[in-house]
Amino acid sequence: MAQAQSEHGSREPPAQGLVQVFTGDGKGKTTAALGEVMRALGQGRRVYVVFFMKGDYPYGERRILAQLPNVDLASFGSRDFVDPASIRPQDREQARQALAAAREAVLSGNYDLAVLDEINVALAFGLIPLGEVMALIRDRPPGLELILTGRQAHPELVKVADLVTECLKIKHPYDKGIGSRRGIEY
Amino acid sequence: MAQAQSEHGSREPPAQGLVQVFTGDGKGKTTAALGEVMRALGQGRRVYVVFFMKGDYPYGERRILAQLPNVDLASFGSRDFVDPASIRPQDREQARQALAAAREAVLSGNYDLAVLDEINVALAFGLIPLGEVMALIRDRPPGLELILTGRQAHPELVKVADLVTECLKIKHPYDKGIGSRRGIEY
Repeated sequence: MAQAQSEHGSREPPAQGLVQVFTGDGKGKTTAALGEVMRALGQGRRVYVVFFMKGDYPYGERRILAQLPNVDLASFGSRDFVDPASIRPQDREQARQALAAAREAVLSGNYDLAVLDEINVALAFGLIPLGEVMALIRDRPPGLELILTGRQAHPELVKVADLVTECLKIKHPYDKGIGSRRGIEY
Repeated sequence: MAQAQSEHGSREPPAQGLVQVFTGDGKGKTTAALGEVMRALGQGRRVYVVFFMKGDYPYGERRILAQLPNVDLASFGSRDFVDPASIRPQDREQARQALAAAREAVLSGNYDLAVLDEINVALAFGLIPLGEVMALIRDRPPGLELILTGRQAHPELVKVADLVTECLKIKHPYDKGIGSRRGIEY
């Protein structure tokens, strides 16, 4: 048994940053992005996470992220879910603010990894324009890794991404009537 | 904009623990489990993570996990990948030790979440018996959440699991000849 306490403490220049997309209807998209954040922080990387659609809900992940060094968080959207059939002006406004914050962070050069959580959904709901998301990807510094999460990833994003995982729901406790559980789903 | 700094500091009794399986050939299985760990820690839960097949490689995630409170780690397997076509005695021995460690941790009552990382692969390679894995699931304390990761999840595991996500590879940089990158894949 070998417990891993690493000997590699020095900070290497980051590898060429790729674009990762986690999409699909199964659990694991935001969670995978959070795992990437943990990994990146463990390697001394600087991380930015922007939640596009999660409001101010006290998700467990935000609490722990806020305790870690080298990670900055921003959160947009209202507490209630956005209804794609009746988009409110504030839904668009929040998503636009999230995108502006993401752009500022990405272009700042201060980060090695940026997670744009639920940006796919904001795009699918028409809250933000595809062109601006594509521009953000195009304009990122070469060393920056970008992770975009959420259902219904736009085909253009899938096309430009280097890594795309579809989280496919085989079984989900919601189907058995078990609701969202604290410390597990949030 | 609402930055989430939570007001809910108290520890609730954990919800009924379910069994989650992350499988498939895409990136996101271990990463999703790590995200769950982060979430659980953010809610004050106690977490155990056992790596079945990853040896002592200095993965970034282990370094950050080792810095966090309320999480215990164990790691088994050799540094080199196990070749399913020529299993060595030490491969079996390491997997058995991992399973024994997992069982002890699960039955200890000390944890709210246990991650059995790559246990699916250990099972698929025949390194550990299905019966013992099923017994571990059956014998767990009611409040313990279990997460099992790795490709080729056994159909019996899928059957007893409450949540199953298949991480489907749509695109992966390995396909373009880009190797495993520090701070990203490990």
